[in-house]
Amino acid sequence: MNPEHPAPRPRIGDVFGEMLRDAYAIRTGIGRRPLAGGRVPRPVIEIIEREDGVINGAPAEQYLAGPEEWQPHEHRAVARVRGRVLDIGAGAGRIALELQKAGSDVTGLDVSPGAIEICRRRGLRETVLATVDDHAREGRRYDTFLLLGNNLGLLEGRDRAAGFLAALAAMAAPGAQVIAQGTDPYGTTDPVHVGYHELNRSRGRFGGQLRLRLRYRELATDWFDYLFCSVDELRGLVEGTGWRLTDVDTADHPYYLATFTLDG
Amino acid sequence: MNPEHPAPRPRIGDVFGEMLRDAYAIRTGIGRRPLAGGRVPRPVIEIIEREDGVINGAPAEQYLAGPEEWQPHEHRAVARVRGRVLDIGAGAGRIALELQKAGSDVTGLDVSPGAIEICRRRGLRETVLATVDDHAREGRRYDTFLLLGNNLGLLEGRDRAAGFLAALAAMAAPGAQVIAQGTDPYGTTDPVHVGYHELNRSRGRFGGQLRLRLRYRELATDWFDYLFCSVDELRGLVEGTGWRLTDVDTADHPYYLATFTLDG
Repeated sequence: MNPEHPAPRPRIGDVFGEMLRDAYAIRTGIGRRPLAGGRVPRPVIEIIEREDGVINGAPAEQYLAGPEEWQPHEHRAVARVRGRVLDIGAGAGRIALELQKAGSDVTGLDVSPGAIEICRRRGLRETVLATVDDHAREGRRYDTFLLLGNNLGLLEGRDRAAGFLAALAAMAAPGAQVIAQGTDPYGTTDPVHVGYHELNRSRGRFGGQLRLRLRYRELATDWFDYLFCSVDELRGLVEGTGWRLTDVDTADHPYYLATFTLDG
Repeated sequence: MNPEHPAPRPRIGDVFGEMLRDAYAIRTGIGRRPLAGGRVPRPVIEIIEREDGVINGAPAEQYLAGPEEWQPHEHRAVARVRGRVLDIGAGAGRIALELQKAGSDVTGLDVSPGAIEICRRRGLRETVLATVDDHAREGRRYDTFLLLGNNLGLLEGRDRAAGFLAALAAMAAPGAQVIAQGTDPYGTTDPVHVGYHELNRSRGRFGGQLRLRLRYRELATDWFDYLFCSVDELRGLVEGTGWRLTDVDTADHPYYLATFTLDG
């Protein structure tokens, strides 16, 4: 009708938390369920918008998936866990709750108040509402840091990775490990993605250094960087941080599990 | 990170057609399936953005739903069909294909080239790629006009309804009927929707006169109006157009089926 219509300006808010609260209500019947037309339950969809206008939706129920619905590499990651565990970007707690059930000493960390509320409602005992930097100032120590569900992406890119990994090093007990799940984005031939990778490189960014925001109903997050990188790119990022890449499991390519340990 | 980041400007294109093509490929294995990370099939989600920034996703597979997955009122609508049928906004042909199978003389009309392509690939014999206004100039006559899947929304509002219904009247055989499915939007108490309804009324629009665009991957439609209205509002819109509201089936409230016939 009018292509020059001003672009909508959604309100900034706790997108992830609101979405998880609704997904939890749909799944369990606990809390107010989202309704279409005031009556019909509607599916809860996470919407991810890239700075260039590419947009994708994914069912939010994945954040509540039980172990029988996990991907194989998620089981392999959990099998490697030892000692005190910090689950970073815990979401609705799907990993942390299973670890707790199995007797692990696990803490779920997230920056979303709604996510932490859902973790607690589901019975996760140890939760932290904070960034890794803030939490590092608390003096807690951990033996395993988990970054599952693509949360290796929290390294963001060259500007942030060293600081992020330094925060983990500050919380690391002797012999601590990071187990992080990443995705290699370069297997695609889709011009929509290949073109974006090229644009990124021309700006001095990693090809898969996505600038994204999440949207749910009337809310959006601010724009943030989220890194999809190859194992080689990851190796470069980790260099000089005190962490060393000691294992890479690529059996579920393009997904991979990277394990780092502290030098010396 | 930076809330003043410029809003993305997605490319204008055949959103609906691209989405249906992908949903069809996922469902049947025919055609290129959409992949995440170049390898993993990903769900096809229709994204609907409202002018005020409210956004919703819905699984596109609903457009390929077989009769066993239809809503009850869709079965009741199809049972009322007689004579030559024009299925307006036929989408992937889920209704028209079943009518054809049952021996109806049915034509599927859509403005999306991709939608019409999928209808034909699925075996729908009579298809028209056009607006109702364009098609009305062809001199074809129909006994039943179907507007299912919320396609009563194509009336848009006060500016468009009379013209839309005049196009149908121009194609109407003696005794022709329109069977249209609408949604009453006013049952909600959700402030996100109630506030939008108020904004609309303050602009002289129907409360449920939504200004929307669809988005899929890198594509968006232009902004368009789509009408969710009460039966009373509909009655007012139809008045003076030559059509008369002769039956309203509200058993699946907030959804309803409205049947119009021509006066005299």
